[in-house]
Amino acid sequence: MTEEKQENKGNISIKRKEKNIKRNGETKKASTRKETKTTTSRERKETRKTTRRTNYSKEIFKASKLKIIPLGGLHEVGKNITVFEYENEIIVVDCGISFPEDDMLGVDLVIPDITYLERNVDKIKGLIITHGHEDHIGSVPYLLKKINIPIYATRLTAGLIRNKLEEHKLLRSTKLIEVMQGQTISLGKNFKVEFIRSSHSIPDSVMLGITTPAGTILHTGDFKVDYTPIDGKIMDFGRIAELGNKGILLLMSDSTNSERKGFTMSESSIGEVFDKLFLNCTKRIVVATFASNVHRVQQIVNSTIKYHRKIAICGRSMINMIETAKELGYITCPDNIFIDIDTINSYTDEQLVILTTGSQGEPMSALTRMAAGDHRKVKITPNDLVIISATPIPGNEKFVSKVIDDLMQIGAEVVYSSLETIHVSGHACQEEQKLILALSKPKYFMPVHGEYRQLIAHSETAQSMGIEKENIIMMSNGRVLEINEEGANITSSVPSGRILVDGLGVGDVGNIVLRDRQHLSQDGLIVIVLTMAANTGEVVAGPEIISRGFVYVRESENLMDDVKSVARNEIKKCEQRGITDWTTIKTAVKENLRDYIFMKTKRNPMIIPIIMEV
Amino acid sequence: MTEEKQENKGNISIKRKEKNIKRNGETKKASTRKETKTTTSRERKETRKTTRRTNYSKEIFKASKLKIIPLGGLHEVGKNITVFEYENEIIVVDCGISFPEDDMLGVDLVIPDITYLERNVDKIKGLIITHGHEDHIGSVPYLLKKINIPIYATRLTAGLIRNKLEEHKLLRSTKLIEVMQGQTISLGKNFKVEFIRSSHSIPDSVMLGITTPAGTILHTGDFKVDYTPIDGKIMDFGRIAELGNKGILLLMSDSTNSERKGFTMSESSIGEVFDKLFLNCTKRIVVATFASNVHRVQQIVNSTIKYHRKIAICGRSMINMIETAKELGYITCPDNIFIDIDTINSYTDEQLVILTTGSQGEPMSALTRMAAGDHRKVKITPNDLVIISATPIPGNEKFVSKVIDDLMQIGAEVVYSSLETIHVSGHACQEEQKLILALSKPKYFMPVHGEYRQLIAHSETAQSMGIEKENIIMMSNGRVLEINEEGANITSSVPSGRILVDGLGVGDVGNIVLRDRQHLSQDGLIVIVLTMAANTGEVVAGPEIISRGFVYVRESENLMDDVKSVARNEIKKCEQRGITDWTTIKTAVKENLRDYIFMKTKRNPMIIPIIMEV
Repeated sequence: MTEEKQENKGNISIKRKEKNIKRNGETKKASTRKETKTTTSRERKETRKTTRRTNYSKEIFKASKLKIIPLGGLHEVGKNITVFEYENEIIVVDCGISFPEDDMLGVDLVIPDITYLERNVDKIKGLIITHGHEDHIGSVPYLLKKINIPIYATRLTAGLIRNKLEEHKLLRSTKLIEVMQGQTISLGKNFKVEFIRSSHSIPDSVMLGITTPAGTILHTGDFKVDYTPIDGKIMDFGRIAELGNKGILLLMSDSTNSERKGFTMSESSIGEVFDKLFLNCTKRIVVATFASNVHRVQQIVNSTIKYHRKIAICGRSMINMIETAKELGYITCPDNIFIDIDTINSYTDEQLVILTTGSQGEPMSALTRMAAGDHRKVKITPNDLVIISATPIPGNEKFVSKVIDDLMQIGAEVVYSSLETIHVSGHACQEEQKLILALSKPKYFMPVHGEYRQLIAHSETAQSMGIEKENIIMMSNGRVLEINEEGANITSSVPSGRILVDGLGVGDVGNIVLRDRQHLSQDGLIVIVLTMAANTGEVVAGPEIISRGFVYVRESENLMDDVKSVARNEIKKCEQRGITDWTTIKTAVKENLRDYIFMKTKRNPMIIPIIMEV
Repeated sequence: MTEEKQENKGNISIKRKEKNIKRNGETKKASTRKETKTTTSRERKETRKTTRRTNYSKEIFKASKLKIIPLGGLHEVGKNITVFEYENEIIVVDCGISFPEDDMLGVDLVIPDITYLERNVDKIKGLIITHGHEDHIGSVPYLLKKINIPIYATRLTAGLIRNKLEEHKLLRSTKLIEVMQGQTISLGKNFKVEFIRSSHSIPDSVMLGITTPAGTILHTGDFKVDYTPIDGKIMDFGRIAELGNKGILLLMSDSTNSERKGFTMSESSIGEVFDKLFLNCTKRIVVATFASNVHRVQQIVNSTIKYHRKIAICGRSMINMIETAKELGYITCPDNIFIDIDTINSYTDEQLVILTTGSQGEPMSALTRMAAGDHRKVKITPNDLVIISATPIPGNEKFVSKVIDDLMQIGAEVVYSSLETIHVSGHACQEEQKLILALSKPKYFMPVHGEYRQLIAHSETAQSMGIEKENIIMMSNGRVLEINEEGANITSSVPSGRILVDGLGVGDVGNIVLRDRQHLSQDGLIVIVLTMAANTGEVVAGPEIISRGFVYVRESENLMDDVKSVARNEIKKCEQRGITDWTTIKTAVKENLRDYIFMKTKRNPMIIPIIMEV
């Protein structure tokens, strides 16, 4: 629907601006300067390439346009996936899921429509992943079941994808290639992808420098600026600046926090808060956080060590994540710091930390079950200090609030984000977004990864930095941007949208099913069954009335009797008029019942008439 | 459930503390001092009363305990209602609704269980209302349909109740008495209720000073401290202090914002923001806010006048509210400032302000319909500046976010709470709560009006002000507090809870109906019908399979055929074994189908087997 609305608006045609011509002149000067000075080996190699391409382009080659097609991630938070297409080659960046909206009843998750990739499977050179969050890797198995393409990702990201592939029995059939931060890979003849070290709320995140004959794209993935990251590996600002100096055609940048002024605090600021809470604490400490926030986990581990406790893990995703992260060296700690959750009774409260999932109050999560007194292994007592090291994701506020209340009613002390700075975002606020704009100095700017209002806020930040409004590209899923140094146009559309996954069914729940679920959820249903003689059209049994989710039948016997007699009367009328056509009878019964029930109850249950024939 | 959990905890028995004895000493001194100095007429009257009571109490009278029974409003935001019972007399304070939780599918609103009041109807002297918000007056009509009691409220509050009574055809049968801020009324022999001027996000709000033989209770209602209120009528701090000096037995205080440090800003701070936005604006201005926030409306009217615009109103509740508020003199403006929404086409964008409901993104509200392009009278264009003068109430974040995105996609400029300080809360933050604690100097303190964690936060604020933990009373709905100067004990429980209203049905939707709706909403349903011969037990028609909300049947014909043959096989097996008992057949079919469907789809639809007999 969102896309349809956009249909008649986006066709921007962007002219060269005086300012940009000047900027290009500067770029050329910069590259000349580089050729004359002493260069490192990497610089030399880069320069050679640049020179060669420049000459080529000047003499015989006029670059085709690069197509950029987001199939997800715009006007939404989730299911990020972007197609880059140059002539007959395609690379894909990220392949995530989103979580169902409130009106998608019964739906487990939402994946992007990849019809366009299926149709162009022969062109695809690879899938590049920026980091290991679900909204960037969650749909990988669903994509692989349709098209088998190689995947490129850094170590931890690859580890997390590997877990998914195992679960979906896709590991053996998939080519999963591990790359290093700082590495550049060539894909096909036209794409070079550089994995630039970034910072985010999961280790091993990268920005992508995508070099094509049409120009260089900087795709930030998800990022924040963290000058004091937990692993000491600071974002490669130098390389971003270097690419910026050479000339970036287009910056595609994370818009999640673009409405927020200022800076996101460093992840390391949370460590001090943990230390403060652990210091002199005689209670058992239970910490809930996002399983994927390995740096957060590391800080909890650090405080655990510092205050001579042991740590036990709860919740499947937390167990899996920590296992993978430890195995790959992303969590460093003495071997004996982690203990089995089954052994916690051998320790006093003072010796224990329990690290758990459920920081979003998810109904089936470990912390929610603890709060409800339903957890098999952990029983919360007034001698627990529960730290919820997260803020509620929009939509989860009430869940989190319920968990906090339940824990407090047991008597536990609960520390949560309204009381202490016990969480920082993984996404850049406006000042950080400005830093990336300042370093990369792009000709064109496309805000990505966010709701429409976040994209708008990000575009305003870019404009405040001097980027012309005409050079800011507001895209939506499924639109095709064609871009090179000559210009940038949104030219067409490809299939895009959301595929609903419910149980094993992928795409079999659509609007009709959802509308029925919605209807059923509001006022329940009434089934009316009758059996007719095939020859005479006479009613030989029924009508029987069965209801579910409508009223509590035992207390509404009169109403149900009335309903039955309304149905019976209507059938009699049909008989008297000699109507034997089932559809007519069904419609008559349905409409009469609907009106009668609404009049009596102001409710509108689904009415299902069924006629059997003997 | 909440109440059950509390069952074994709350029985606090509170002893006299040295500190309190001293405080009582001071109180007595204060009242002695008063008797000797020149007094105003009101003071004289008060003093006489106090003296009389004191003498009485000293000589022959030992005060009974006052019972305080909250029937709603604790561990929740909503359906506020509290019973005060002294000997054979009862007064009730407030009678609100709450909105359904996410799992209460199809429910329209939630009202308190007033069984206790029905059982004690002869004792009830009146219902006192603190202010006109739905969570304080919304259940009044439902209460009146059960028990007819007189209602006491200030002017605007009474006006809003009158609208409700008209709608429910209760106006003629109800005694609705208007009182003034500052007035004291006597109810029965034991209750004197003083309506103390307060500030909140609706005019005419009061705190209640409830004087009984057992002592004086200060009940804050909902409040904030606003030193510069729009109507210039500042909270009656002097009177609160006066009551505090005389000795307040118990303070019951609003806990909504008790997690927030600092002060809530004055309502008048918003006026400046409106002026800034209106200044030099050439667009049409659309403002969405809470209909009941009459002061906000007044400020919007003020800016409208100042910048020479006209104002048109959209949304039923906004129209009703403004009509009532104008009629009763709570909005002051020239007559011709409001124009009919049908005439907006006679004005240019620059001349118009449209004031609308929908600041919470409620699905059927005027602003939501405008954003979706569905509003009959207002079509949003890029020449609209939309100001959402509200913050999302927890649970509404996604609705609001969707509305903002939709408006922006049309091209409208949208100003909302993340971008500008365009809303202030109506509730006190910690520093304001402290002020009321400091002025009222209560012996006992009961945090009310809030989730459990908010009550806890408020109790911590009270402790930081020197109130002993033993003197802080953590209540829950349905518990009975018995209190006087001798002590305070939670002694017993009365029926309490939530009654669900769905359409015309009050209380006929319970756990079974909700569980069925929940089940139906997740995976839909499958109905299997078969007709059996009564004499032989032979299947003469069917099985027929009908599904709704399960899969899209046209694309799942194979699955539905399989389902049918599983059902057919199971019936055949029963026939072969000579089983003719319906219940057994139904159970067998149901269980087999459930297992088969889950194996094939990992879904769990509701399965309804129906057997007809001919």
